[in-house]
Amino acid sequence: MTTQVEKFVYDFAEGNKDLKDLLGGKGANLAEMTNLGLPVPPGFIITTEACRAYLKGAEPPTLRDEVSEHLARLEQAMGKRLGDPENPLLVSVRSGAKFSMPGMMETVLNVGLTDASVGGLARQSGGNDRFAWDSYRRLIQMFGKTVCGVPGEAFDEALEGAKKAKGTHNDLDLDTDDLKALVNTYKKIFTEHTGREFPQDPREQLDLAVRAVFDSWNAERAILYRRQERIPADLGTAVNVVAMVFGNLGPDSGTGVAFTRDPGTGNRGIYGDYLANAQGEDVVAGIRNTIPLQELERLDKKSYDQLLEIMAKLENHYKDLCDIEFTIERGKLWMLQTRVGKRTAAAAFTIASHLVDEGGIDLDEALHRVTGAQLAQLMFPTFAADGELKPIAKGIAASPGAAVGKVVFDSHRAAELGNAGERVILVRRETNPDDLPGMIAAQGILTSRGGKTSHAAVVARGMGKTCVCGADAIDVNIQARQFTVNGHTVAEGDIISIDGTSGNVYLGEVPVQPSPVVQYFEGKLRPEDDELVAAVHRIMSHADARRRLRVRTNADTGADAARARRFGAEGIGLCRTEHMFLGDRRELVERLILAQTEDERNAALDALLPLQRNDFIEIFREMDGLPVTVRLIDPPLHEFLPPLEELAVKVALAEARGEDPGKDATLLAAVRRMHEQNPMLGLRGVRLGLVIPGLFKMQVRAIAEAAAAVKRDGGDPRPEIMVPLVGAVQELETVRQEAEQVLREVGVEALIGTMIEVPRAALTSGQIAEAAEFFSFGTNDLTQMGWGFSRDDVEGSFFTRYLELGIFGVSPFESIDTEGVGRLVRISVEEGRATRPDLKIGVCGEHGGDPDSVHFFHSAGLDYVSCSPFRVPVARLEAGRAAVTAVGSDSR
Amino acid sequence: MTTQVEKFVYDFAEGNKDLKDLLGGKGANLAEMTNLGLPVPPGFIITTEACRAYLKGAEPPTLRDEVSEHLARLEQAMGKRLGDPENPLLVSVRSGAKFSMPGMMETVLNVGLTDASVGGLARQSGGNDRFAWDSYRRLIQMFGKTVCGVPGEAFDEALEGAKKAKGTHNDLDLDTDDLKALVNTYKKIFTEHTGREFPQDPREQLDLAVRAVFDSWNAERAILYRRQERIPADLGTAVNVVAMVFGNLGPDSGTGVAFTRDPGTGNRGIYGDYLANAQGEDVVAGIRNTIPLQELERLDKKSYDQLLEIMAKLENHYKDLCDIEFTIERGKLWMLQTRVGKRTAAAAFTIASHLVDEGGIDLDEALHRVTGAQLAQLMFPTFAADGELKPIAKGIAASPGAAVGKVVFDSHRAAELGNAGERVILVRRETNPDDLPGMIAAQGILTSRGGKTSHAAVVARGMGKTCVCGADAIDVNIQARQFTVNGHTVAEGDIISIDGTSGNVYLGEVPVQPSPVVQYFEGKLRPEDDELVAAVHRIMSHADARRRLRVRTNADTGADAARARRFGAEGIGLCRTEHMFLGDRRELVERLILAQTEDERNAALDALLPLQRNDFIEIFREMDGLPVTVRLIDPPLHEFLPPLEELAVKVALAEARGEDPGKDATLLAAVRRMHEQNPMLGLRGVRLGLVIPGLFKMQVRAIAEAAAAVKRDGGDPRPEIMVPLVGAVQELETVRQEAEQVLREVGVEALIGTMIEVPRAALTSGQIAEAAEFFSFGTNDLTQMGWGFSRDDVEGSFFTRYLELGIFGVSPFESIDTEGVGRLVRISVEEGRATRPDLKIGVCGEHGGDPDSVHFFHSAGLDYVSCSPFRVPVARLEAGRAAVTAVGSDSR
Repeated sequence: MTTQVEKFVYDFAEGNKDLKDLLGGKGANLAEMTNLGLPVPPGFIITTEACRAYLKGAEPPTLRDEVSEHLARLEQAMGKRLGDPENPLLVSVRSGAKFSMPGMMETVLNVGLTDASVGGLARQSGGNDRFAWDSYRRLIQMFGKTVCGVPGEAFDEALEGAKKAKGTHNDLDLDTDDLKALVNTYKKIFTEHTGREFPQDPREQLDLAVRAVFDSWNAERAILYRRQERIPADLGTAVNVVAMVFGNLGPDSGTGVAFTRDPGTGNRGIYGDYLANAQGEDVVAGIRNTIPLQELERLDKKSYDQLLEIMAKLENHYKDLCDIEFTIERGKLWMLQTRVGKRTAAAAFTIASHLVDEGGIDLDEALHRVTGAQLAQLMFPTFAADGELKPIAKGIAASPGAAVGKVVFDSHRAAELGNAGERVILVRRETNPDDLPGMIAAQGILTSRGGKTSHAAVVARGMGKTCVCGADAIDVNIQARQFTVNGHTVAEGDIISIDGTSGNVYLGEVPVQPSPVVQYFEGKLRPEDDELVAAVHRIMSHADARRRLRVRTNADTGADAARARRFGAEGIGLCRTEHMFLGDRRELVERLILAQTEDERNAALDALLPLQRNDFIEIFREMDGLPVTVRLIDPPLHEFLPPLEELAVKVALAEARGEDPGKDATLLAAVRRMHEQNPMLGLRGVRLGLVIPGLFKMQVRAIAEAAAAVKRDGGDPRPEIMVPLVGAVQELETVRQEAEQVLREVGVEALIGTMIEVPRAALTSGQIAEAAEFFSFGTNDLTQMGWGFSRDDVEGSFFTRYLELGIFGVSPFESIDTEGVGRLVRISVEEGRATRPDLKIGVCGEHGGDPDSVHFFHSAGLDYVSCSPFRVPVARLEAGRAAVTAVGSDSR
Repeated sequence: MTTQVEKFVYDFAEGNKDLKDLLGGKGANLAEMTNLGLPVPPGFIITTEACRAYLKGAEPPTLRDEVSEHLARLEQAMGKRLGDPENPLLVSVRSGAKFSMPGMMETVLNVGLTDASVGGLARQSGGNDRFAWDSYRRLIQMFGKTVCGVPGEAFDEALEGAKKAKGTHNDLDLDTDDLKALVNTYKKIFTEHTGREFPQDPREQLDLAVRAVFDSWNAERAILYRRQERIPADLGTAVNVVAMVFGNLGPDSGTGVAFTRDPGTGNRGIYGDYLANAQGEDVVAGIRNTIPLQELERLDKKSYDQLLEIMAKLENHYKDLCDIEFTIERGKLWMLQTRVGKRTAAAAFTIASHLVDEGGIDLDEALHRVTGAQLAQLMFPTFAADGELKPIAKGIAASPGAAVGKVVFDSHRAAELGNAGERVILVRRETNPDDLPGMIAAQGILTSRGGKTSHAAVVARGMGKTCVCGADAIDVNIQARQFTVNGHTVAEGDIISIDGTSGNVYLGEVPVQPSPVVQYFEGKLRPEDDELVAAVHRIMSHADARRRLRVRTNADTGADAARARRFGAEGIGLCRTEHMFLGDRRELVERLILAQTEDERNAALDALLPLQRNDFIEIFREMDGLPVTVRLIDPPLHEFLPPLEELAVKVALAEARGEDPGKDATLLAAVRRMHEQNPMLGLRGVRLGLVIPGLFKMQVRAIAEAAAAVKRDGGDPRPEIMVPLVGAVQELETVRQEAEQVLREVGVEALIGTMIEVPRAALTSGQIAEAAEFFSFGTNDLTQMGWGFSRDDVEGSFFTRYLELGIFGVSPFESIDTEGVGRLVRISVEEGRATRPDLKIGVCGEHGGDPDSVHFFHSAGLDYVSCSPFRVPVARLEAGRAAVTAVGSDSR
């Protein structure tokens, strides 16, 4: 180990694909290919360890010598020398971090080219002077910009100027003399901005380029990207120094990319593009059109056959879809990069299933290779003809789904139309908290500004609402009530369709097609009818077989319960009884609140009892034989009354008109009396039950009588009564006594347990478990109280800023904060079980359906998670993945 | 130990005063006196252990035999036998728990008396038939009520009937025949209610009486008392079985109580009362007037001299004020009880100081014997002529102080007059949350209903407002706007005076005199001028010498800082900068909030800067040389704007009148935009600092420039900058960078630290300490978030109910909840110091001045507490007591 620690540079032959931490992804794979005997241009890797030391201000003192040594070996292997005027070696200097950060970091090509060696390069290339001077021009431009911070526009303008002078738009029309002149201009620009000459010492070029790559780790865009992708900030990047090969040396040269399977569908076969007489950057720049990879066979059969052979070898070796970059230099094939390829959600399932069929991987590995996020994506409806339609704009895919509706430009109008039953798309430059009502009422949100952490994106994801943001081609004109984009003008009321999964925006109504995966869960599509469904079915079945965590659902109605059961729910983890107080029943709740006497209060409770009982009967029937956790009423009662401001204005205006405000005055007095500064921290949950006589008793009776009724009909109801907002065991004990009495009276058995959602409950779980047969973590409230912020108030205000500042990598309401809130969960599980070893422990609330959170709950030792019906399959899948993934390992 | 565990009954000779846990207070002291050779009637004690076993349903099987054995010894010692018709032994059966619970539990006297033995008793008493039958009558009454649950009224009515028949109001007028008849009536009543004859087996009487005492531990009033006094519920009571002695056998008999010093003032000397030919219960009943103890010398010099000798012996033995009960039976003195006597706050200090002078105790012990609660009591103003005036009513002393003002019967009027500068006393039957504005505006609150945990009491204590509650002689007539009490009619606007320390209510204005202790702290009274002040000075000086905890104050102005310094504050632990945004400056804050551009915002901040700087200059000057912790702005900015409801109504009415609401409309829009559902959990504290550019910077600059200015004038300012509401280290790091830059620019040094008030901050203190030089616990917010309730919303609503239900023994806002919130404090201290061993840790918020909480903070290892100026002496004293009291021992 000691020698490893002191070694900062590796030849490709010294590495392998498992050393990504040290060598970065690109370097590790180049090493792997080298050792597989594939034609990789020789090179070496400067490790991430060297980068980390450098970034701490302590570049390893031995680094320079190590580089010299490896460079000498490289020169020997290539038979060329860096900067040799006769036969110069050129190298590329590229970043390569552990996790791919496409386009985020720096690359310098053609390092080693100088005034002295440019002629040597021309000779090497068979007298191709134009090529040599173009290469030199490119070096000065890339080096100037990347290494020395010269503004890119300065070079771009000079290039444009040269083309203008030549009367062309195409770089290829510039001849050798033009390029020589351009090199001179570029050198002047370089000197102007840096105060020094362009370095003519090739080794200095190399060293500066390496440091620039190191520094690029902390470039602003790289920092932002890492925050968004939740990549740790302290990994650093490796640097790959590779002998240059050229695909632009003539028609017998070229460059291409290839996939060993279709990354879109997952189907078997060769996919790729090739561009003759070009370099990789030309492909990216899109100057010329590529040809399908298959046509390479016609152009260069030898290289094509060799490439196919290599791709088969790589797939077989990596046991996965590989993404390859290659270059052909005068008929000789070189492999420039390979990696496990990115793919669509559908392809992920299909490939994993195919690989099992092919014997490449086992089912555990297949399960490990798909994610809940991918499954969730497959459950959204999509636009039927997505591929064929032309979008009018493309923005950032901020919150998935397919939404269609009339364009509306302000929140007020959106709420008005939305509440009247119209489908609307709220279009804004950017959103702010004032837009919330409109966002709630809309089918989807489209903004022209802001990224994945903008207000619109954060809030929409929180709501599960389709959102495309930052579509910057769109010019929103609120005054004119229209937007223009790429020549189209879209007025308020026009219909558009937005795709939150791709970021595409379409004119008019695009037909939406249901998700085949949802159809499968709904029993409308069988695995044998659809290849994707077959793959999903196979992997989900394995997840179910492997997972330790049970998955329940949050459901308040029989219909929700039935749907969730089809999605695989194994019971209800959270049935919110307050939802049964809405609609027509609001009037009864008002009577309850306004009751002046015990009789009035009891009358209101008596009227509510049969209604609640019927709700429970329906739910117990749908969940027959499975546990149903019913939470006693949680929100403050004044939530059932009209808002204070609205009532006060109504009464004041009536009085100003000399009218009698009537019942509104009584209501206003009640609302004033019950008004709370911070209702979330007020009279709610168990506190209500202890303060309002008979309220919890009525609910327990409704549960018990419903269970008795279902049992009489031959059913198997399994009620569990859950007390919300408990902070002290005494609260639970008091409610428990009351509830047990009612259960005895009705002659029904039920578990009695509590939410753990108040920090104190977690901290005193050893005591609370004495009175609870189960715990269910309310991680939403636990997050709100643990952090001291209310979701309603903060997601729209400072969360955007916090995500920008990197205080959160992700909203703690989306994915559980394992360090703070998670610590409360671990304390509670440990101490609750110490008191009562058979304590049943679960979690309800949306964290129960979040992939990363599911892994945490698995590792924390919970018995089940509960989430909304649509997230049930995601939770099942991730619970299976958690079971096959070693604890603490990377689940992404 | 094995023998002890199996032994459930102790003779007095077997016990001592240190066995209170096992023998109860009364029994342990009787044992102690017995062993001192004092004349204690023989008896034995059944242990608390036996009681605990009995209450768990498992009375020790050996108990009966043990009692028999001890009873036999007792009979032998007395030469009498229980139930012996000729020479009967009578015993008293009395409860005696570890902590005194006066009047809360049961006593049965004269046990052993039966139809058969009543004649024997008459003969023992020299033929005093009347005495014997009266004793029998008393037994049936006490036994019936206490042991068998016969309603007391039944006996009372029979007694009244007998007196009526005799034409008298005095029991003493009933002769032997009357009493014989009464015994018969009582027996019938007994049988009627119990379905059985009054037990004629004396041993059965004894056993039933013992069990009744055991059961009385769980009587409702005992449970309530323990909750109020915070006595653990599982201690159980011991039972004392003592040979009866009689003070009512003639003029040479009598009974009395005595104190070895004056419990009112603490002065040396004999204090007590004596009643000839009477029993203890007659003294309590107040049928005849007692005479001063000194007159006993004349009546019975021998007994008097013996008593004085015994009292001196007891004082010398207990080294404290002793409270004694004695009986003289035909010239023979018997000691029935002694205990360390209760005393007033003033006496506590005086006695402790005197005992040191006398060499009885050392200063540590003296410090241990006084409490912060007593000191706090001495710091309230009192009514000058308290003893001489006759109160019109007496209620429960719910919240101390002396308040004078006009009677007002509703909250609205109280607020109106109060805000207009009038002194008012709010008088209500009972209060509810609607009364809050009036309670805030009033000098004091008087209610006719409710106890120490009623709404009025809880809220008034929370506010530190004088309150007398449950003065049930007062009949409040809201409609007539007057109350009547004992013949007085008091109308609205009449002046009354209420004493929250005694519960007394006076008509008219009683002159208020300042506290001599406060005058001493203020330097207006010297120790040599006043004995109480001398005692306080001596003990406080010792507390200061002994304590490890430093004591700082919460102060926002120079005046507060100066006063607190006179009270002994060693710096400022919390200077709230938002208090500097009020008054005239509110307009600037409005400008800041409404700023549309960066320039407008900066202009508002620039205008605030010099004002804040001047505030800090004043404070730094007053606290020269001592640390001053300044908290950056904490509350949400919309708190500086008018309330939403008020503005909405104003704008709506203006618009209805066709007027332009002008600036109100702009304000309303801002208030709506900034409205938060739960402002406590919203955009405040560090979040404001991170979202509003320049706000924290302005404050840090004001602090830094103020320090620089004071330094230039030769002062020694010691600023500490505290960031509120931090939940994650990244928040603190971001603010820290900004603050350090400003400090460097101004050239001033300051510690930078954070509040720990969000549960997550406590749970991640190991990380947060990396960016903090000090922690200060905001236990108010930590309690609010840890329990999930907001003080404003809950103290008035469900706290009363929670105190009644025993969910809290005391409001967690008064005294820190050591199990839940305290656990967060301990985690934070431990993990913060693990990261940064020299981390300075304190607490600000009112818990810092609460006695029990100070002991907790001492044991948790904090460096200082900070509290309001008036609580500083209390905190100093309790910090000293904590240092001399073993950790974990009882500090009451």
